[in-house]
Amino acid sequence: MRLLLAHLNQPYEWEEVPSRHVAPRTPEFLAINPNGKVPVLILEDGTALPESNAILHYLASGTPYLPTGRLEQAQVVQWMCFEQDSHVPNLAVPRLLKRYPDDPRQANLPAMFEAGYRALEVMEQHLAQRLYMVGGAYSVADICLYAYTHLAHEGDFDLARFAAINSWMERIRSQPGYIGIDAQPGLEG
Amino acid sequence: MRLLLAHLNQPYEWEEVPSRHVAPRTPEFLAINPNGKVPVLILEDGTALPESNAILHYLASGTPYLPTGRLEQAQVVQWMCFEQDSHVPNLAVPRLLKRYPDDPRQANLPAMFEAGYRALEVMEQHLAQRLYMVGGAYSVADICLYAYTHLAHEGDFDLARFAAINSWMERIRSQPGYIGIDAQPGLEG
Repeated sequence: MRLLLAHLNQPYEWEEVPSRHVAPRTPEFLAINPNGKVPVLILEDGTALPESNAILHYLASGTPYLPTGRLEQAQVVQWMCFEQDSHVPNLAVPRLLKRYPDDPRQANLPAMFEAGYRALEVMEQHLAQRLYMVGGAYSVADICLYAYTHLAHEGDFDLARFAAINSWMERIRSQPGYIGIDAQPGLEG
Repeated sequence: MRLLLAHLNQPYEWEEVPSRHVAPRTPEFLAINPNGKVPVLILEDGTALPESNAILHYLASGTPYLPTGRLEQAQVVQWMCFEQDSHVPNLAVPRLLKRYPDDPRQANLPAMFEAGYRALEVMEQHLAQRLYMVGGAYSVADICLYAYTHLAHEGDFDLARFAAINSWMERIRSQPGYIGIDAQPGLEG
């Protein structure tokens, strides 16, 4: 999200919401997003748009970062759903759990690593045959998957054997306007 | 998916993939979807499009079932991601687990019910103020959430107190071309 905003050179204000895990369930925050999750984009007219991938979609709309073809637009949604159901729950959560040793989800770590490596294999196989996730050009499908892929090592995933993923991450880092988003502290979803 | 195809009166072939849970990990199926999940749409040129919401997006593109405005298109993605991260994992899985009493995920049922009722509350609050999920018209955002909402009672969710959701489901059932999808046997995601 901050990466896309940097690519677009679009001004914004960034406000952190204090929370344990991903659910800032205060009345003030629930009035903005009843689902109690970060991030939320607040538009200039006050409209609140939750879900990181919906925010990417909105910001990229009308720019080269969102393809315009029917199949390619559906494939962007395909990889955004893959990120939500197969990628984030397995690749992002182990990193988060390192800060919460008493979290009951610690018991699920072996299953998360198994499913997380499977998600990485799916990406590796896909990227072994193409430069970017969708349609031959850099898009929000790449940005959405880059976020927790490039931080997965902080959750003790070993990315060394994923050659195509590493080349793809290098290509993303060489995009004009790239900024490091490593400082991003919590789990956005 | 079958509901949208019926609305669109579009011919298709439906093939069931035998699987336990949601991962038909045979070599034949992995060649079609390396992520090993149903459903997958096979286009006439052989292109395989996985992820139920990407399929809905593709089929609805260019029809009244996909809104065209920038914000509304992002809101469709918003509710599709909500379905993936907050809705299906909690509302669909209890129904599935009734068939697998020895599944280790049985231990997560109390957490699933808590999060599932929270997802229903989010929908209830949203629908109390509007007729459909996005932009005042029936769209794939409604179809995507209808599927496991209207089957949630089979996983022992009590929907009686969600008046706005029940009215919304009635509005969906009264759409031209509506077909019952209750017979849908497994978990699509």
